[in-house]
Amino acid sequence: MPKPKVFEKPIGFRDYLPDVVKKLRAIEHRVLGCMESWGYEQIMTPTMEFYDTVGVASATSDAKLFKLLNNRGTTMVLRSDMTAPIARVVSSLLKDQAMPLRLSYHANVFRSIEEEAGREAEFYQTGVELVGDGSAEADAEVIALAIASLKAAGIERFKIAIGHVGFLNGLLEDALQGRPEDQAALKEMLLSRNYVGYKDLLNKLNLSSEISKELADLLRLRGGEETCERALRVSSNETARAAIEHLCQVWAVLKAYNVTEHVLIDLTMIGDFSYYTGMTFEGYAADLGFPVVSGGRYDTLLDGFGHPAPATGFAIKTTRILELLDLEQNEEVLPTIIVYDEYSRSEAIQRAQAMRQAGQAVITSKLSGAQELSSIVKDGRTTSYEGRLYADVIAFTEKGAGAK
Amino acid sequence: MPKPKVFEKPIGFRDYLPDVVKKLRAIEHRVLGCMESWGYEQIMTPTMEFYDTVGVASATSDAKLFKLLNNRGTTMVLRSDMTAPIARVVSSLLKDQAMPLRLSYHANVFRSIEEEAGREAEFYQTGVELVGDGSAEADAEVIALAIASLKAAGIERFKIAIGHVGFLNGLLEDALQGRPEDQAALKEMLLSRNYVGYKDLLNKLNLSSEISKELADLLRLRGGEETCERALRVSSNETARAAIEHLCQVWAVLKAYNVTEHVLIDLTMIGDFSYYTGMTFEGYAADLGFPVVSGGRYDTLLDGFGHPAPATGFAIKTTRILELLDLEQNEEVLPTIIVYDEYSRSEAIQRAQAMRQAGQAVITSKLSGAQELSSIVKDGRTTSYEGRLYADVIAFTEKGAGAK
Repeated sequence: MPKPKVFEKPIGFRDYLPDVVKKLRAIEHRVLGCMESWGYEQIMTPTMEFYDTVGVASATSDAKLFKLLNNRGTTMVLRSDMTAPIARVVSSLLKDQAMPLRLSYHANVFRSIEEEAGREAEFYQTGVELVGDGSAEADAEVIALAIASLKAAGIERFKIAIGHVGFLNGLLEDALQGRPEDQAALKEMLLSRNYVGYKDLLNKLNLSSEISKELADLLRLRGGEETCERALRVSSNETARAAIEHLCQVWAVLKAYNVTEHVLIDLTMIGDFSYYTGMTFEGYAADLGFPVVSGGRYDTLLDGFGHPAPATGFAIKTTRILELLDLEQNEEVLPTIIVYDEYSRSEAIQRAQAMRQAGQAVITSKLSGAQELSSIVKDGRTTSYEGRLYADVIAFTEKGAGAK
Repeated sequence: MPKPKVFEKPIGFRDYLPDVVKKLRAIEHRVLGCMESWGYEQIMTPTMEFYDTVGVASATSDAKLFKLLNNRGTTMVLRSDMTAPIARVVSSLLKDQAMPLRLSYHANVFRSIEEEAGREAEFYQTGVELVGDGSAEADAEVIALAIASLKAAGIERFKIAIGHVGFLNGLLEDALQGRPEDQAALKEMLLSRNYVGYKDLLNKLNLSSEISKELADLLRLRGGEETCERALRVSSNETARAAIEHLCQVWAVLKAYNVTEHVLIDLTMIGDFSYYTGMTFEGYAADLGFPVVSGGRYDTLLDGFGHPAPATGFAIKTTRILELLDLEQNEEVLPTIIVYDEYSRSEAIQRAQAMRQAGQAVITSKLSGAQELSSIVKDGRTTSYEGRLYADVIAFTEKGAGAK
């Protein structure tokens, strides 16, 4: 066998060692359990999809998709999110099921990255899609479920910012009719949260002072319930007003969930997924500079799969919140080790089997010499043996089975 | 957005709908739990690896590896098993840890396939690696753990066949000295279980009648403990005898585990992974024509990563055993649905939240008209509503909150 030349993994990919896997698995288990209690059922889809199907429908820019050719020369992608694959399944295998559909997932997704950027090329998302319900109730349900899921994951301090793509679209439609490049440039400033650049650009666009003020006022439309009322005063555009009225309804339902303490309205937020058509939201945890959850409504994505249906959902960036969480100490369970000599093997192994049946973690190890037992050092609730920690060391030897 | 042209997923890849995911998750949970109770800790590695590192070290033939180029032109592979990636991690991140290491995993792996073959290009494996212990005790531990894991998965009727690559290598070394092509041809016959072809080939090889008989007798070396004794009479080659003596020791430890009813010795079995150096095994479930678990010892793989250590392990083909198992009926839990009109939203949602806190699965749905309630049909323990089954339907309406 030729020797491997490189002992590294690719940049942007990571290994998860046991301590981290325990945390990730605990989060996965709790969040999926929470989603299940809201009636969401888990689905799994392939890691690889056709570029022409799921690649094109995804919100990930072409340059960020991992592409490969199959042996027929067809372009494939590694999935970059789960929303497009689930849209494909809903439009094919599930097309005859009664709507609405409530689906959940925990999956790895892929983004081809600039190697310098230090971002992750493969990461895990845990999320839901609620398909077939276009109401404000549905939008509020996924926001409330995102809040419940973050709490289930163990995150306590976080805020969800809600926006609506219709508000900004409506404002810009009126203010910059027939100037799509200028509209796009302003949106780009908001997307990158470059508010200074946004105002500079406004000044360069030769707008009437009234319109310029209206677009500048947008930046102040962040806050609680009252933001909706202020927004209604800013614009008389119908698209913009319909967006705000929808957000008011969503807020009313969120009140019924008793979760508005975690929510704020931010009309500068437009969501970074091209398929969003309505409400969008992002969740920020205290002390983290990037969103830990993002979601929104995408009422036209399923059209592309020949099965039109309104839909809304979110994804938690599960591997991103790992650093935020400390597992409680009592979830870390050390195994017991049973050591034995050649005369005591059966008794030792039978004892190990019985303890495993009773739910304990047990390692067995044959002694190669009696002197090994001298390395046992007890220290409170743990025992050190040959350089590792155990809950206990039990020795079965000729001289006395079960002796410690 | 351009419309996707193809509504299919790639051949060899599959979607898992909620009923199947429940089963797969239950198996995953039970098997990983079993492995944990034996002291094995979970590890996760990237889906993508360097071809020169993990691709070359893996036992998958080059033609079956999924390859892609990164933006620097380096060849990458989608992992085809977890043994090579874990060898990479053991040799890098874990190189300073005390041996032996007990690691477990549940992961998807990839094999590029001929599109006609109907085989899976992506499937899930659940397995372990025991690194740093070259003893018969270690081989017996992984075999006994494979048996415990299959039982934990819910498989009741199965057999594990144990072989040793050293036995056949020893026999052929003596019988066909300097004729590596003929040795390889005979091995190929055994690997494909073409015993008629094996005997035909023996007759064509111009061997002495004694050697020819010795190699033909190999085919009868399948059975219980007595097979080892018969094998010792067949060959005086040292490599072959050492292999048999090792299997005798493994058998003795398996007796201590009380699991020999599931085990047979099959010296015609050579294992299909090029990196196996010692004991190999395969598990067959009743009614299935392919192995559900395979494993073996690979004492030289870690040399290639610059961290020599003996190792042994196995992988269960988790998605292959899905069809074998029926989830017990009581694991299928239907949600309750709470429906409400616009006057009763808060009460309805608060009730749902309380029921979820208590561990129940609850869906909420706003009524758009009172007539919807007429579609409730109770039938024993389930209730049908709008074409779907629920554990219960609870209605909150103006006319009486909580009325059914």
